[in-house]
Amino acid sequence: MVQIGSTSTVTGETYVIPSDDDRDGLSNFIEINGHKQIVAVQGLGFVGTVMSLVVANSDNGEYAVVGVDRATEDSYWKIAEINAGICPIVSSDPLVSDFFERAKRQQNFYATYDSSVFSYANVIIVDINLDVTKVKDESGNIESYDVPLAGFRKAIESIGQVCKEDVLILVETTVPPGTCQKVVYPILVESLKARGLSTDRFKLGHSYERVMPGPNYVNSIKNFYRVYSGINDESADAVEIFLKTVISTDEYPLTRLKTTESTEMAKVLENSYRAMNISFAIEWSRFAENAGVDLYEVVDAIRLRPTHANLMYPGIGVGGYCLTKDPLMASWASEEFFGLESGLQSSVKAVENNDKMPMFCFDFVSNILKHHDKETTSIGLLGVAYGPGIGDTRFSPVEDFYNRLSMHFDNIKCQDPYVSLWAELNLEIETSLEAFLGNSFDILVVTTAHRNYLNNDAIYELIGRSGKEMVIIDTVGLLDLHKLPAHFYQNKNFYVLGVGHNEE
Amino acid sequence: MVQIGSTSTVTGETYVIPSDDDRDGLSNFIEINGHKQIVAVQGLGFVGTVMSLVVANSDNGEYAVVGVDRATEDSYWKIAEINAGICPIVSSDPLVSDFFERAKRQQNFYATYDSSVFSYANVIIVDINLDVTKVKDESGNIESYDVPLAGFRKAIESIGQVCKEDVLILVETTVPPGTCQKVVYPILVESLKARGLSTDRFKLGHSYERVMPGPNYVNSIKNFYRVYSGINDESADAVEIFLKTVISTDEYPLTRLKTTESTEMAKVLENSYRAMNISFAIEWSRFAENAGVDLYEVVDAIRLRPTHANLMYPGIGVGGYCLTKDPLMASWASEEFFGLESGLQSSVKAVENNDKMPMFCFDFVSNILKHHDKETTSIGLLGVAYGPGIGDTRFSPVEDFYNRLSMHFDNIKCQDPYVSLWAELNLEIETSLEAFLGNSFDILVVTTAHRNYLNNDAIYELIGRSGKEMVIIDTVGLLDLHKLPAHFYQNKNFYVLGVGHNEE
Repeated sequence: MVQIGSTSTVTGETYVIPSDDDRDGLSNFIEINGHKQIVAVQGLGFVGTVMSLVVANSDNGEYAVVGVDRATEDSYWKIAEINAGICPIVSSDPLVSDFFERAKRQQNFYATYDSSVFSYANVIIVDINLDVTKVKDESGNIESYDVPLAGFRKAIESIGQVCKEDVLILVETTVPPGTCQKVVYPILVESLKARGLSTDRFKLGHSYERVMPGPNYVNSIKNFYRVYSGINDESADAVEIFLKTVISTDEYPLTRLKTTESTEMAKVLENSYRAMNISFAIEWSRFAENAGVDLYEVVDAIRLRPTHANLMYPGIGVGGYCLTKDPLMASWASEEFFGLESGLQSSVKAVENNDKMPMFCFDFVSNILKHHDKETTSIGLLGVAYGPGIGDTRFSPVEDFYNRLSMHFDNIKCQDPYVSLWAELNLEIETSLEAFLGNSFDILVVTTAHRNYLNNDAIYELIGRSGKEMVIIDTVGLLDLHKLPAHFYQNKNFYVLGVGHNEE
Repeated sequence: MVQIGSTSTVTGETYVIPSDDDRDGLSNFIEINGHKQIVAVQGLGFVGTVMSLVVANSDNGEYAVVGVDRATEDSYWKIAEINAGICPIVSSDPLVSDFFERAKRQQNFYATYDSSVFSYANVIIVDINLDVTKVKDESGNIESYDVPLAGFRKAIESIGQVCKEDVLILVETTVPPGTCQKVVYPILVESLKARGLSTDRFKLGHSYERVMPGPNYVNSIKNFYRVYSGINDESADAVEIFLKTVISTDEYPLTRLKTTESTEMAKVLENSYRAMNISFAIEWSRFAENAGVDLYEVVDAIRLRPTHANLMYPGIGVGGYCLTKDPLMASWASEEFFGLESGLQSSVKAVENNDKMPMFCFDFVSNILKHHDKETTSIGLLGVAYGPGIGDTRFSPVEDFYNRLSMHFDNIKCQDPYVSLWAELNLEIETSLEAFLGNSFDILVVTTAHRNYLNNDAIYELIGRSGKEMVIIDTVGLLDLHKLPAHFYQNKNFYVLGVGHNEE
């Protein structure tokens, strides 16, 4: 039998995926933590892992946490490394490893693939991913979309099959509004009934995370506002009591909403609002470019009004994956769960528009480069991560942009201070800015607004040393024209996405 | 010959429209103010009139202001009343009449219909209206829209025909981005050339107002941020020097943008942003209603995040007329002036959606009233003005709502503390809340969020005295359920637009 392995993206280590259960490991952990409440966190992704750490480090010292994920190629390595004392998340936030090490020292954090863990749990936090599928036409217009709930249902069933009768289940996953009542609750009731248990003692609540991976990763959970709800008052009370022990609710008071539909809706509304604001900026970027207007200065002028402070800048695209799916999830629920015939058309349109951002960016760039030769032009991209200060390339808009650009130009090199291997494209990435800019590119495209590019203004010096004929295209509004060598201004060799290039 | 009159909406007085010029009146005013700079303000609407007052009361005491409007039925009365010492604007802001009286005492404010005034002017401020025409289908979808510029061109021509060679022309009208460069500038150059004058001495700039009629009317001009630009540096400098003498720029610093296209775009972008935010709230209101969710509490919970502070509440509709035209004006300009093929689709869609608000509101109300009888049901509407604290019914969303409602119900009465005659519908309006609520309606619909309805909680007492069977429908989120008599809660006789009515 061929053994399947799971390779860590952190250490590169490959771990053999076990074929048996984890009863021994689990019962050992439960024994050590006999006096503590057991909290199981389902899903060891970007939310679940750090949520586990925050709960394990709660001030009351009452919790023993078990992170649960599947024994698959993609996921098993996290379980193996957590139990081996290796933090499965690399972060610019030092609190992540601090929290991890403290939890391991306290021996109150364990990971498993064995769903029998739910039989021990007093609290189960659901942090699994729920994706949206989209079908698009050639122009990138969304033809249809769906939220396939089968995997999510199975995950809830795995809880219902073994959980305690009076467990508190807290759903943190971003779900279509209505999911707790229409999907989770019926599964639990049915499972408990089938097991001959009471169906009115468990508590079910919803409270969404606002996790921001990056320098404030841990605090985006521990020190931030939370909205929560329960399927009944007892459930909401239980969620409140629990959250108060893990989050700094004195400083960031909790907000209770009346129904689980309300908090589920709040989450997707939040993200839809951002998606819509970004979509708005895109549409006006095209207008500004055509009209010779600098949209950045226009936005700055308008933002002085508090009623317009959320107005957004132009850019190459939307990072992460929440904003590109949550509005669709909301629209899907409005139709499927609540019979709103038209769905949420504007929100769907915003996603469609945002998904096209790298394409708009490519159009902008290729219009500038239309007389450049495919074979001889050398192009450098500054930044491949999906956002400033992060080494994460998943769902990076630079990927689509790069793919389009590489169809028209042969010589493209990339740099990113936080990424040495671009996993999605299997590309080696230069991490040294100095080495990279030694290449004297014909074209330099700024594709991620990493703030440390601006440290000590080194980038301007390095650019200054490059050849005088270089053209810079800034797709994220990072560089300051006035700090660039004068010839960029004089020769009009500096272009910014969302800024019209006045030809007169 | 039949003399045509112009009737004041303030005093009810009718004035005979003169058929001769106003040379004598003008030269008299110019003589009195011989040592002062002459500022002509073209357009005595809601912006131009108060702008005139602010300039006439500038701290430097250097300006004599002439308001200019046409000698038409609609407008002439303003000219007559200004010159007779009657302020043509009724406002809850006491500064409006203070400023008017001071200017009249100082004899530095005059009004005329005679465009020869522009020959005296050192500064001309353009504050005329520019409308957008829309064609809609039966469902309210926008089929086409246009910005007919003929009237605007004529107004600028009337300036060019007589203006000084070195005049400063400051456009404050909301115009399609590109208008100063592509419309105003060529007209002026051509006119001056035809008159044998130099075409490079006049200054042309753009600076948009952010006037808010209401209790801070004057300060929304005098004490608020301004964005400005000029067609060249000399023009921008001249605008800056002028604005610094009339606006409190120490406290509210000016923002100079690079081109007139930029400030023109900033204005319509500002309003399009608001229109889009409102449209977003509409779409989610329908979802919330269907899902039994209280959108108000969801919005409150989300607004705690500074990045989401501009999120808007649900409501009956958009007040005033800027938000329902400016996004179209922008989209029109993007296509007509700058060749952006698709225009600004989302912004157009937002207007379409917002225009339907009173219809959505009517659907919400009629769904609640579906079993109520056309002839016997008595309905009271609280508020007919287009917004809180204003007595202005122009473009009020309540009008469309009322018209729809009155097709289905015979007995509708209206109340508004600030409106005694609803001019658009020629309806008498009760101004006393007490007298109005003495009627014991079957249905009470709150249609304007006048804050003074809540003064001393009198409204809750008055409602309490009404019959127990009354149903209240709040379309603007004004009333607090917990302050209403308990039977509203118990009998579920209280409905709010944007709030789902949970039936379980």
